Amino acid sequence: MRAPIPITDPSDPRIDAYRDVRDRDLTGRGGFMAEGAVVLEQLLASRRYRPVSLLVLPGRWAGLSARLAALPDDVPVFTAERAVFDAVSGFPMNRGILAHGTERSGGEDVAEPMEAVLAWTVREGGTVVVACGLTNHDNVGGLFRNAAAFGAGAVLLDDRACDPLYRKAIRVSVGTVLTVPFARGGAPSQIRALLTDAGFECLALSPGGELRLDAIRERRPRALFLGTEGEGLDGRFLAECRSLRIAMAPGLDSLNVATSAAIALHHFFSLSSPD
Amino acid sequence: MRAPIPITDPSDPRIDAYRDVRDRDLTGRGGFMAEGAVVLEQLLASRRYRPVSLLVLPGRWAGLSARLAALPDDVPVFTAERAVFDAVSGFPMNRGILAHGTERSGGEDVAEPMEAVLAWTVREGGTVVVACGLTNHDNVGGLFRNAAAFGAGAVLLDDRACDPLYRKAIRVSVGTVLTVPFARGGAPSQIRALLTDAGFECLALSPGGELRLDAIRERRPRALFLGTEGEGLDGRFLAECRSLRIAMAPGLDSLNVATSAAIALHHFFSLSSPD
Repeated sequence: MRAPIPITDPSDPRIDAYRDVRDRDLTGRGGFMAEGAVVLEQLLASRRYRPVSLLVLPGRWAGLSARLAALPDDVPVFTAERAVFDAVSGFPMNRGILAHGTERSGGEDVAEPMEAVLAWTVREGGTVVVACGLTNHDNVGGLFRNAAAFGAGAVLLDDRACDPLYRKAIRVSVGTVLTVPFARGGAPSQIRALLTDAGFECLALSPGGELRLDAIRERRPRALFLGTEGEGLDGRFLAECRSLRIAMAPGLDSLNVATSAAIALHHFFSLSSPD
Repeated sequence: MRAPIPITDPSDPRIDAYRDVRDRDLTGRGGFMAEGAVVLEQLLASRRYRPVSLLVLPGRWAGLSARLAALPDDVPVFTAERAVFDAVSGFPMNRGILAHGTERSGGEDVAEPMEAVLAWTVREGGTVVVACGLTNHDNVGGLFRNAAAFGAGAVLLDDRACDPLYRKAIRVSVGTVLTVPFARGGAPSQIRALLTDAGFECLALSPGGELRLDAIRERRPRALFLGTEGEGLDGRFLAECRSLRIAMAPGLDSLNVATSAAIALHHFFSLSSPD
């Protein structure tokens, strides 16, 4: 049976990864921080990422036993009392569960190459989401959560979008950043060329879109391009794209971007699974 | 032409309402705090609420001139340099625009009595949203934003839900808390009785709902009952209600509550406005 490793000194170097997690992020340094039991579950289910170690409050140990049983033996689980835990993390972590995670060696190819994910999505008549310029961690996290809820095949992020492995993005995504396939890089027009070649109909969501969402009645492989709330997608990109709008009451012309995505993804998903 | 009233001393009692706005709320004390130009616009458009005063950075004055012209003469506009502004508010307010608002004398009846709002919504075949037990300010704010986007007639909140006039709820709602009619009080079953009598079909949104959202094809006056993300609506209440579900991919059974509402409201709105 696994034994916890008690930490009593906040400066203990074994828990360096957990230091000041509120104010700094591990992205770009080969790691990320997962908070809470639900996110931990996604991390344990992930084929692309793995836990390096855990830091939990002693009081959370018993409730975690089923999940800890799924943990490889070489992943240490540190415990620290509330005062030490908060001193290390830098703020009161009500969930009392932190996991330091990293990409499995071999990177994203360990899980499934993006080409295979896209080919599968095309065969299923599914949807991929393309986030262009999104840098708000809440929005990126919410986007992944909604992509997961409606079975999107993948999330692609352009080269201006933020890394979805930021702590807050992971948290808001309820851990789905770790399980929904994603890739980041390229300009929107490059991603569109790639997806068109792969067999997707590319649609750009925009308040002034030519096509109304609920006019779409047939299932087919689709890529949904999303811009930021303020600026939206680049005008030149939009002009070269089929654009889609969500019918709204007059006056306000802007929904939250993750909410817009949810509405479109739900519509496409409902087309693909009548019951 | 209106002249700004410069504030140079953070302890100036004329700006007491703006003190420590991050950590305390004015709700329950007859006021609220509106942040940013977009929210200010909703406050100026509101029939139920009015501005008491404004506090802005001097650099924002010119850009606000059109909005300030719409301000009654007896509403003072204070300006303070960044250091004073941040010292008063207690944290760096990037927007640089704060408005202290309050209910117009006469309360909600000044705008339009809820009975009239509901009767209008029934005539239009519209939707009202009923938030039960929602205490998360982000969710309540997001719910109002989505209610506004899809022209919901009103938002009703049960007696366990939080006051939507919390600063963060107002901000996340992009100010629509100040313009979408709302009322708070009563248990869900009491609200349901009231709405049924008024002519609404009451539907409870639940992951296990009997009716699938996209099976609804006809426009009629509807009330959409929403519970919290974790617990959802009370089991006894649900058993006495027609329940509605959003089709989702297997595995994850929970969307954010404001996102769920957006999906349902968009569906109802699309039924009511084919083009």
